[in-house]
Amino acid sequence: MSRGEETRLRILDAATEEFAAHGIAGARVDRIAGRSGMSKPMIYAYFGGKAALFDAVFEAHVGANSERVPFTAEDLPGYAARLYDDYVADASLMRLLMWKRLERTAAGYLYPGLEEIDAQHVRDISEQQRIGRVRDDLDPGDVWALLISTAGTWAQNSITAVASAGDAPAEHERRRAALAAYVSAALTSSRRPTD
Amino acid sequence: MSRGEETRLRILDAATEEFAAHGIAGARVDRIAGRSGMSKPMIYAYFGGKAALFDAVFEAHVGANSERVPFTAEDLPGYAARLYDDYVADASLMRLLMWKRLERTAAGYLYPGLEEIDAQHVRDISEQQRIGRVRDDLDPGDVWALLISTAGTWAQNSITAVASAGDAPAEHERRRAALAAYVSAALTSSRRPTD
Repeated sequence: MSRGEETRLRILDAATEEFAAHGIAGARVDRIAGRSGMSKPMIYAYFGGKAALFDAVFEAHVGANSERVPFTAEDLPGYAARLYDDYVADASLMRLLMWKRLERTAAGYLYPGLEEIDAQHVRDISEQQRIGRVRDDLDPGDVWALLISTAGTWAQNSITAVASAGDAPAEHERRRAALAAYVSAALTSSRRPTD
Repeated sequence: MSRGEETRLRILDAATEEFAAHGIAGARVDRIAGRSGMSKPMIYAYFGGKAALFDAVFEAHVGANSERVPFTAEDLPGYAARLYDDYVADASLMRLLMWKRLERTAAGYLYPGLEEIDAQHVRDISEQQRIGRVRDDLDPGDVWALLISTAGTWAQNSITAVASAGDAPAEHERRRAALAAYVSAALTSSRRPTD
């Protein structure tokens, strides 16, 4: 890793902690500087201002989630269960999404630049409906929205219970299995698959 | 309505707008005073400090939601659909929940004082499992968590799409029906009910 890349990652790590805890308005570049051991001018030189630094942190976490949990339209219950694990593994991800929702984008699309990737997920669901593996009485975009919300049942924006890495392994296993069983029953077609 | 009650409601309305937009740390009692036409000392006299005012706003919105949408364990799909409508009708509710989640209670129970009511919901689900109306292979507490998360698919904390009052009636109807159909398939028992 180059010296520049190392500096960039140290700043991103410190900024993740700051933004996940305090949000965009509440974050202080001073604290990010202190925690990363980099000067404020260095942080501005690498990332521009606080808003652009938040964008970089946001994109890094959303991108890493997509890489760790590739979308599997042919296995929606498994995808939901893997998302459960990933929200537990990266406790900052959902908080970053929520800060952006609350502070910046109250109703619109949260991931500028990823529109085409999300549209492909919906087309993949539509294809599963066509071949009879996913129920076809629901709009494929609605299936995507329902699936994502269900997968986040115990994520950091839960209004019931938030899972955390310290929970007992049996508890994680029970939730993961419940999620997969629930999604499977909710979305599996009662038609016989055609492929 | 007494003069005191009127004052209280004017402050609560202005505070709802302020907290829903800016959260707890970001809220300014000055702006609440300006918007309500009440003085800052008056606000402190009625509610104590900013933190206590947030609690009062939070409790008012959570309580109103429970009153408008009573829990119906015998009709979980209908309950989910009614929650969809209520999140659209009170656009502040879910934002207040999220601010509390992000700023105060990262992982614990969000509604101090309501533990017994929520425990009763879980017992009601358990009873529906016993009589064979809800699938009994899932923990009743997990059923509650899954149901609530699913019902919030298009709420203000959605990481896909947020519904708003201005959306076309047909769109609301399509989502409401999708939600009910999804929850029904996910949770209905394949056993024959015993009552």
